[in-house]
Order: sequence, then C-alpha cells, then structure tokens
Amino acid sequence: MLLDVSESQLVLVDYQERLMPAIAEHHVVLANARRLARAAHRLGVPVWGTEQNPAKLGQNDPELRALCQRTVTKMAFSAVEEGLLDCLRPPARPTPGNARSLPRHLQKAQAPTVERSMAVLAGCEAHVCLLQTALELVEQEVDVWVVTDACGSRTERNRDAAFDRLAGAGCELVTTEMVLFEWMRSAEHPAFRDVQALIK
Amino acid sequence: MLLDVSESQLVLVDYQERLMPAIAEHHVVLANARRLARAAHRLGVPVWGTEQNPAKLGQNDPELRALCQRTVTKMAFSAVEEGLLDCLRPPARPTPGNARSLPRHLQKAQAPTVERSMAVLAGCEAHVCLLQTALELVEQEVDVWVVTDACGSRTERNRDAAFDRLAGAGCELVTTEMVLFEWMRSAEHPAFRDVQALIK
Amino acid sequence: MLLDVSESQLVLVDYQERLMPAIAEHHVVLANARRLARAAHRLGVPVWGTEQNPAKLGQNDPELRALCQRTVTKMAFSAVEEGLLDCLRPPARPTPGNARSLPRHLQKAQAPTVERSMAVLAGCEAHVCLLQTALELVEQEVDVWVVTDACGSRTERNRDAAFDRLAGAGCELVTTEMVLFEWMRSAEHPAFRDVQALIK
Amino acid sequence: MLLDVSESQLVLVDYQERLMPAIAEHHVVLANARRLARAAHRLGVPVWGTEQNPAKLGQNDPELRALCQRTVTKMAFSAVEEGLLDCLRPPARPTPGNARSLPRHLQKAQAPTVERSMAVLAGCEAHVCLLQTALELVEQEVDVWVVTDACGSRTERNRDAAFDRLAGAGCELVTTEMVLFEWMRSAEHPAFRDVQALIK
Repeated sequence: MLLDVSESQLVLVDYQERLMPAIAEHHVVLANARRLARAAHRLGVPVWGTEQNPAKLGQNDPELRALCQRTVTKMAFSAVEEGLLDCLRPPARPTPGNARSLPRHLQKAQAPTVERSMAVLAGCEAHVCLLQTALELVEQEVDVWVVTDACGSRTERNRDAAFDRLAGAGCELVTTEMVLFEWMRSAEHPAFRDVQALIK
Repeated sequence: MLLDVSESQLVLVDYQERLMPAIAEHHVVLANARRLARAAHRLGVPVWGTEQNPAKLGQNDPELRALCQRTVTKMAFSAVEEGLLDCLRPPARPTPGNARSLPRHLQKAQAPTVERSMAVLAGCEAHVCLLQTALELVEQEVDVWVVTDACGSRTERNRDAAFDRLAGAGCELVTTEMVLFEWMRSAEHPAFRDVQALIK
Repeated sequence: MLLDVSESQLVLVDYQERLMPAIAEHHVVLANARRLARAAHRLGVPVWGTEQNPAKLGQNDPELRALCQRTVTKMAFSAVEEGLLDCLRPPARPTPGNARSLPRHLQKAQAPTVERSMAVLAGCEAHVCLLQTALELVEQEVDVWVVTDACGSRTERNRDAAFDRLAGAGCELVTTEMVLFEWMRSAEHPAFRDVQALIK
Repeated sequence: MLLDVSESQLVLVDYQERLMPAIAEHHVVLANARRLARAAHRLGVPVWGTEQNPAKLGQNDPELRALCQRTVTKMAFSAVEEGLLDCLRPPARPTPGNARSLPRHLQKAQAPTVERSMAVLAGCEAHVCLLQTALELVEQEVDVWVVTDACGSRTERNRDAAFDRLAGAGCELVTTEMVLFEWMRSAEHPAFRDVQALIK
C-alpha cells in the first residue's frame, strides 16, 4: 500500500540536543527528519513531537520543534500513554455549555472525527523509544510507517535490529524520499518543486 | 512458483537519458534491462515501456525503446492509471460495425482474452516510480515480479529499501538470469544458445 | 509485542570456558550475557543456565554461573528434554504429607502456577545448541525471544543463518539493550540508574 | 522444526567439473557438499545426485558421485521431472509374479512405503538449477531444506537472491553444520566423533 497524504500524520521521536551527538550518522538522521517535517508542513500533514526526560536530555532540535503542533514530554520510553495517542486520535469532545440539558433530539450533532489513520514515525533511539512507541501504536491498531533513514541509535547493530523487529510486527519500513513522493503522487502536484528542492 | 514464458509480460520503467547517469550502478542496470528486453523479444514476450515527464527527463534508452510495443508517457509516478494497466489487460473491444443491431444469438462471440498474468517489472528509480507502479499493480491483483539487478535508485539505501518493501507487499524478487532461465526451462529450448549468449 | 518483566525468564546456553574462545566476537557476546544476567538479577527475573558436556567443555563463565538459579547439564544439543523445560514450567507438585489420604473436598487447593511465559534466550553456538533449544521450546509453545548480540558461533555465517531461521520459526529477535529497556519501560523505574549503568 | 535423520534424503545438484571453477567460493561450496555426503553416508541417509547436460558440463565431482545411490542426468534445469521425484518418492511396485491372479483377499499386503519426507538440497547454480529444482519440489509438497553454504552461483548477488526467494517459497535455509548436528541431536550419538571430525 502507498502512503496517502490525506490520511497521514508525522511523529518525530526524541531528536534531543543531548542525545543526538551520540547517534550513528546523526547528521543524516537529523537532515531527513527536517525534510519530513518541512514537507509535512508544506502539504498540510499534522506533525507531533516527543521528548524523553527533557530536563536531562534537552529539547528537540529547534527547527523540528517549531514545526510540531505539539511536543509531548515523557518519562516512559513509549510516548503512547504519555499523550501521543490523544494527539493522533483526539478523544470526542463533550458537548459544550448547556447543551447537555437540551433534549437529545435538539442537541447539535458532533462533527464526525476525520481520523488520519497512517502514523509516519521517525526518531531516536530506534531500538528504545522509537521501537516501544511504534509497537504500542501497533497494539492500538494504528497503521505505523517507520522512516528508516530518519531513525538512529548509538550503534548500527541496535538500529538495524529495531528495523527487523518493526517489520516483523507489521510496520511498513519506508525512506524519506518514499514518503515525499508518495505524499505527492505526481510531478504535477502543486508543491512538487518545493518538495523536490528539499532532497537536492 | 517459477515464471512461465507464456504468461509473462515485461514492463520497463523510466530508463531515461537524463535520469540514468545519476543512478547507482547504472551501467549494470541498463545492461540487464537490455538483456531482458532482447530475451523477451526473442521469446515472444510482450514488452511495454514507461517514461516520466519525457519533456524534462528525455526518452528511454533507444535500444529499449525500439523493443517496446508501446511506451506510456506519464506525469504521475505510477504508470498504472496512465495507460499501463490497459496495456497489460487490454479492455474488451466493443463489437465493431453494425453487429450491435444484430439479435444476440447472431453476434459473433468475442475471442476470449488470453491474459498474461505475470508482470515482470524493472526500472528507475526503484523507490519511486518503480515502487509506486508495482504496488498499484499489486492492488489491481496483478502478479508482480521485480527484477532487482535491472532496477536502480540514486542511492543504494533507497533502492534496497524498495526491494524489502516490494517483497513485503507480495512481489516476487528475481534477477535477470533467473528470468531468462525460467522463461526457457531447459537447455533444449530452441532459443537456448541465443539467450545464453546474452549473459556472457 | 514488548517484553514484560513480570512474564520473563532468562536462559543462558553454554557459555563454557573451553568453547567461548573459539566464538566470533566472544568478548562482546560474553559481556552482553553478563549484562542480561545482572539486569535479570536486579529486576527479579529468574535465570537458568545450561552446559553442554561439561566434563569436556568446562563450566559456564563463573559470573554467569553464580547468577543462575540452576544450571542444567546435558549431552543432547537441545536442553529442553534435559531439564530446562522443567525449570521454565515447573510441574505441579504433589500435595505433601498425609493430605493424600484426605477426602478430595477437604484437600487444600493448589496455588495456581504463575507461569512466566516469555523465555529470553542467548548462548552458543547460535546454530547448534541455542538453535536446537529454541526450536524445541517453540514446539512446546513457549514464546521465545533470542538476544542476538549475546549469541555467538565460531563463524558469523553460521550465526546469522541461525538468526534467520529462528525468526522464520516465530522467535522474536531482540538485542541486549532492547531487553533491558523493555524490562523497565520508564526512566522512572526504581532500577533505572543501576540498569543503565550496565550498558555504559 | 529440526531435521530428523530418519526422515531425510540428500540431493546434490550439478557439482560438475566444467561448471564448478566458475562458481564463487567454489572450494568452500564443494567442501561442504562433501561433508554432507560423507555424513549422510555414515548416518544411513540416502544420497541422490543430478548432472546438467553432462556431455557438455562434465560429470559431478568424483567423490560426490561415488556417494550417490543414483545420479540423474537432465537437460531441463529442474531435475524434478527428469527422474528426481521418482528417487525421492519411489512409485509403488506392482505385486510381482502370479500374485495378480490371486483373489484379492489372498494377495500379500504391500509393505507400507516408508517415505522420507525431508529433502535436503544443495548445489549449483543456486539461482538456476538448484532454485528450479527446489521450487518444483515445493509444488509437489515435498519439504525442502536448502543448505546455503553448500550452494553457489557464479555471482554472489544471484546466489543470495536465490536464497531469499527460496525462503519466501517456504524452503528452510540451513547450513552444513546445522544439518550434521540435527541429524545427530546429541554428543552421545554413536557417530558423533566421526561426524564431528568432518567439520574440523
């Protein structure tokens, strides 16, 4: 299956200032995360961030942080129960004001939630916070797409083991360029020049 | 399952003059595409080509182009809706002439479509146009065989990620030599010497 | 699925003094086995050991041996029928003393066995004793998790072939760090500093 | 699942004198094939050989040839229809002599065929004759085990592509040492010293 831009959300996990320098190929990893975030922003795809224990590990890369609608802070390695699932699947809002006292047939119908079911994930460390977040999303029956060339661990062996395990659990492994070209689908997409410029 | 020459069609995706020089191992990739096209021609396998935005990227390699029954031009990255599916599965032709006015039992029965169900694909970039074309064919329930050593991307990482994803989606990954020897099945095939000469 | 510390048991296969020096990357393999055993000990996870023909191959690494609740000696390459399965799934104990003579309705109900269903395995050689033990546990419907960076064979080719085969048989392939961080789940776990110190 | 020596047969595909020198790592490939054949011979496992167009490519390695119960010659790349399937699954013999004329209830019951259902395959080229033979056996519902380190192609890329495809088709990929230790299962096997000596 191909990614559908209207069904996508982007989740950027723990690109933190005191974690990134230890990550293998961290310049490549961060550059790809920025490409994803800029393209998502250009194409109207919601972007969420997470930060592990920011008091100790610092904040996310400033450029990424500025492109996130919300950044979830967490102490658990998985972000799912720390607020991320509520971002991806906003709970139905209670009817506001006095509406509750109205007879049922007079209450205004809630707008149907337009859920975006494809969660495109990337982050660090691939075998800890990214992995635990992805696998818990899978258990919540979210479709998870992991962007491998925007993920990193301190060692390549741990990183690659994470990818194998994620694939085995049903996550789709993609690359940054795959995501960008599937979000557009055609060289006639109005954002084609802007997005193509990101990968030069 | 082995390839069956009588069930096969060959699809060559975007071997274009202004794209190929940027492809990793482009000499090998193009040489294998030529082997596939020549063998298909020798063995009576239909060959189709695609070109992405030829006004900008140029035409396919001339030798390949000459061996294609038809070359589909496209702006979408996937060729499926741009004419390729009609090549692979020709729509039933309407009964010509005045036959329509004849009573049903006098109309000539249409020849049953002898559909070739195995689409053997190769091309560039492996993770964009080849991938999107292949995955959309899978969604159309076409059996897709991807010839890995005739596919290329600018980077090997993107190319190999495409192969993993194609395999996960149910495509069969093969090599040029596998295709040639499965199309023949035996050293007694009348074309054995000609086809074997292609791989020396 | 993520590992659950309350469901886990650790099995350390054949880290024997006259076998280890021949194992590829044996320093790394043994260091990771020690990390696993120390973390398991700190987190209350039961640890079991096995030794192949110890009269010939010697005992397990002394530090590992000291952390095992029991070390099973064996001549078969698989430890499953040699006592390991009884460690992982203790058979129901007969009611002690005179209780047997009591009428059935007066006998004290046995405490339900709290079985730990996740067997975390590592050891040597990956393609012989570790593989045969793991595959026989799978046949017993035990959930098997193999810690790849704590496993070794004399050659990397045999080791990696074992991992592929284990994955194909339904074992989950993990790394030492994955295990440790999944056993804790959060930086607020009371053992976080102790366990994190093991991987520095 | 582990290999069972009493269920196994060994098939050695095309280790021919004018083919082998072109095979990548041919010394290793042939050495492992000889280990398999000697161990099979020692353990009572039937051994079959195949030769592709021997008039052109020569005979199999003499040591292997001497250990085969029968060597099937062939022109098709797959040996299955060329006599191999009859070796692996001998057709029921007609009742001999005059027994046919006896009334049914007086006929001697045929001995039930003790079929060995596990076909352990190795050979060259991995992506042509070995692959086609293996995939046709799979279609015949034979359980196929491919010994990767006793298989070869001229190029490693073709060889490894064959292994991926064989695994995807349901063949179990094993190594020479895996086979030997699974055929014995224990260091107390009476042939343990002899077989272990083969891999030193």
